[in-house]
Amino acid sequence: MITVGILGGGQLARMMVLEAAPLGIRFVVFDPAADACAGQVAPLQVGAFDDLAALEEFASRVDVVTFDFENVPAASARWLAERKPVFPSPAALAVAQDRLSEKTLFQELGIPLPPFADIGSREQLAAKVAEFGLPCILKTRRLGYDGKGQFRLRSEADIDAAWQALGAQADKTGLILEGFVAFDREVSVVAVRGRDGEFRAWPLTGNWHVDGVLSASLAPATVSAAQQQTAISYARRVAERLDYVGVFALELFCRGEELLANEMAPRVHNSGHWTSDGAETSQFQNHVRAVLGLPLGDTRVLGHACMLNWIGQMPDPAPVLAEPAGHWHDYGKQPRDGRKVGHANLREDSTAALAGALERVGAALGRQAQVAPVVQSLRDGGVTPA
Amino acid sequence: MITVGILGGGQLARMMVLEAAPLGIRFVVFDPAADACAGQVAPLQVGAFDDLAALEEFASRVDVVTFDFENVPAASARWLAERKPVFPSPAALAVAQDRLSEKTLFQELGIPLPPFADIGSREQLAAKVAEFGLPCILKTRRLGYDGKGQFRLRSEADIDAAWQALGAQADKTGLILEGFVAFDREVSVVAVRGRDGEFRAWPLTGNWHVDGVLSASLAPATVSAAQQQTAISYARRVAERLDYVGVFALELFCRGEELLANEMAPRVHNSGHWTSDGAETSQFQNHVRAVLGLPLGDTRVLGHACMLNWIGQMPDPAPVLAEPAGHWHDYGKQPRDGRKVGHANLREDSTAALAGALERVGAALGRQAQVAPVVQSLRDGGVTPA
Repeated sequence: MITVGILGGGQLARMMVLEAAPLGIRFVVFDPAADACAGQVAPLQVGAFDDLAALEEFASRVDVVTFDFENVPAASARWLAERKPVFPSPAALAVAQDRLSEKTLFQELGIPLPPFADIGSREQLAAKVAEFGLPCILKTRRLGYDGKGQFRLRSEADIDAAWQALGAQADKTGLILEGFVAFDREVSVVAVRGRDGEFRAWPLTGNWHVDGVLSASLAPATVSAAQQQTAISYARRVAERLDYVGVFALELFCRGEELLANEMAPRVHNSGHWTSDGAETSQFQNHVRAVLGLPLGDTRVLGHACMLNWIGQMPDPAPVLAEPAGHWHDYGKQPRDGRKVGHANLREDSTAALAGALERVGAALGRQAQVAPVVQSLRDGGVTPA
Repeated sequence: MITVGILGGGQLARMMVLEAAPLGIRFVVFDPAADACAGQVAPLQVGAFDDLAALEEFASRVDVVTFDFENVPAASARWLAERKPVFPSPAALAVAQDRLSEKTLFQELGIPLPPFADIGSREQLAAKVAEFGLPCILKTRRLGYDGKGQFRLRSEADIDAAWQALGAQADKTGLILEGFVAFDREVSVVAVRGRDGEFRAWPLTGNWHVDGVLSASLAPATVSAAQQQTAISYARRVAERLDYVGVFALELFCRGEELLANEMAPRVHNSGHWTSDGAETSQFQNHVRAVLGLPLGDTRVLGHACMLNWIGQMPDPAPVLAEPAGHWHDYGKQPRDGRKVGHANLREDSTAALAGALERVGAALGRQAQVAPVVQSLRDGGVTPA
């Protein structure tokens, strides 16, 4: 029996295990935390991501290695790849770990994106802020996640504060300044590429963020056929250039018909969580199929699906479970401010039925604000003012 | 976090764990075998079903108890029920464990069924064979499973052989003689009842057996609306009389428009395996929802689904995985003659697409005979000659 090793034991690893175990494989999960939630459903090896002795033992227990967490040190990924097949490859991971390399790649591939610049000093920051205009965002090149390691500049007076907050990182992880783009909405392509180069994408997902963290997703996003095609062609270009294997997400801003790349995530992605209940094959199973070199599953959507993220603590499950369309996903984590602890998927055959289900759930849980933009998008055909 | 204990650690427990873990619960599985396949996805406690010390420890680890295996000694189930909630109840389990009690119950509830008789001696056997006619089947009252503990009588000359094979059981488990009914096809109702009495059934499933073991299922079975309604009303009667909690299956023979009860299984059932990929909520998640007193999930079918059982050893997964409709379920068991080691589910929007998928899979795996009756049922609207 084949054993898949997963670096990182959070909810993504947990859902990979639950949804790919029917393929008849075993898993071992590697995580620094002894209470990593994937450890509830698979053997967990506790260790630091740079502990080579622990990684050596991990490598000896598995046939192939993949990731739940993309910020595993690139050196560790390369070291593992000398021992066992690692997908996606450490080289692909290295590009996606670094905002500057990633955006430079988009540029080389002819994928439009907002302005960006490598920032090495306060003077460069000031110059580029003047060039891009305000607002704009200073970010660390690496290790940012859900709005961490970021500073939004709203006026020139913020330059000092931004530099004070992040300037020390210029010589460590590096810094990047990103120009702000006024966009109508955010979408993502969740796609998968096999070891033989086969490429498939789920229909575009519309996403809504609150404080930089995903709040809700809707699939299919009601974009034009041209946008759908363009976005998927961008994702395909990236995947082929990186010889990528597995599932990844490409986040994009929509400005009218124009699409601008934001970033990619080299792993199964929160904006693809709806696929567990709303697509013929989930991102979790297709990721594992890709990593094992198995045929990829169909990515068609079944009707219309919405994902509502639960941050901090789980709400009462009853209103979601009582919906015909309701599916509950509790990651088995301890509650903590800002932590992703679970989500709900709602799937219906029509947009009207899905909007109705969302309104009932929003009202029952006192989360009208969370469901409102999704309901509006469903009712008006998808175009939500920013 | 709530922990569900499952007595029996086979594929049914494994699928309960995989499909109900998203509810945010933990599991402990109890099985006599150290390599029980559910132990790959949940903590496994190894012990005999009548080892009270082991059961005491098991009870201390869980909040509620259910079953993957209905032939747990009734005394053990009752003993556990004095310590923790047990669903279905030991009383319901006791009825379903005993063919004579079960058939007597069907009779009391006005559910038609083939003739049956309690057999205590060779003379009674001969008398009842004469009354029912041939062929007929002598079975142990308890512990039969997939054709084991059964003797089919084809002529009067078989009476001696039947009594020689099973007569010693008359004073132990007891024996029952069942008359043979010429039927057109076999169907099952898979249904679920909640702790609050809420009752739901999936659409009727058509089943094909080979050598007494399920080979293929098709849902929805193409029965008349009246048959659908009648079958579900029978299942409901049984569930309500037993104050049943959880999923169960009622197997029925169709003779024209007439329905005759065969037997019930007080657990998730092989003929409900298609629900993992072909229904809004699977039997596995709904069983756990019922046991925990959570709202039950919707039982609607998504299009048309077929399940193909893999017995003995797993075939090549590629032809199924390459089908858009194909879903693979490998239980992670060692191959062994006659053992259920996995299944495939195929789901399509139309009967024609499903028939096409089945023909391709049957041809690729050299299993044309296994898919043929299902394909015929799909093409001719469901009525397959016996």
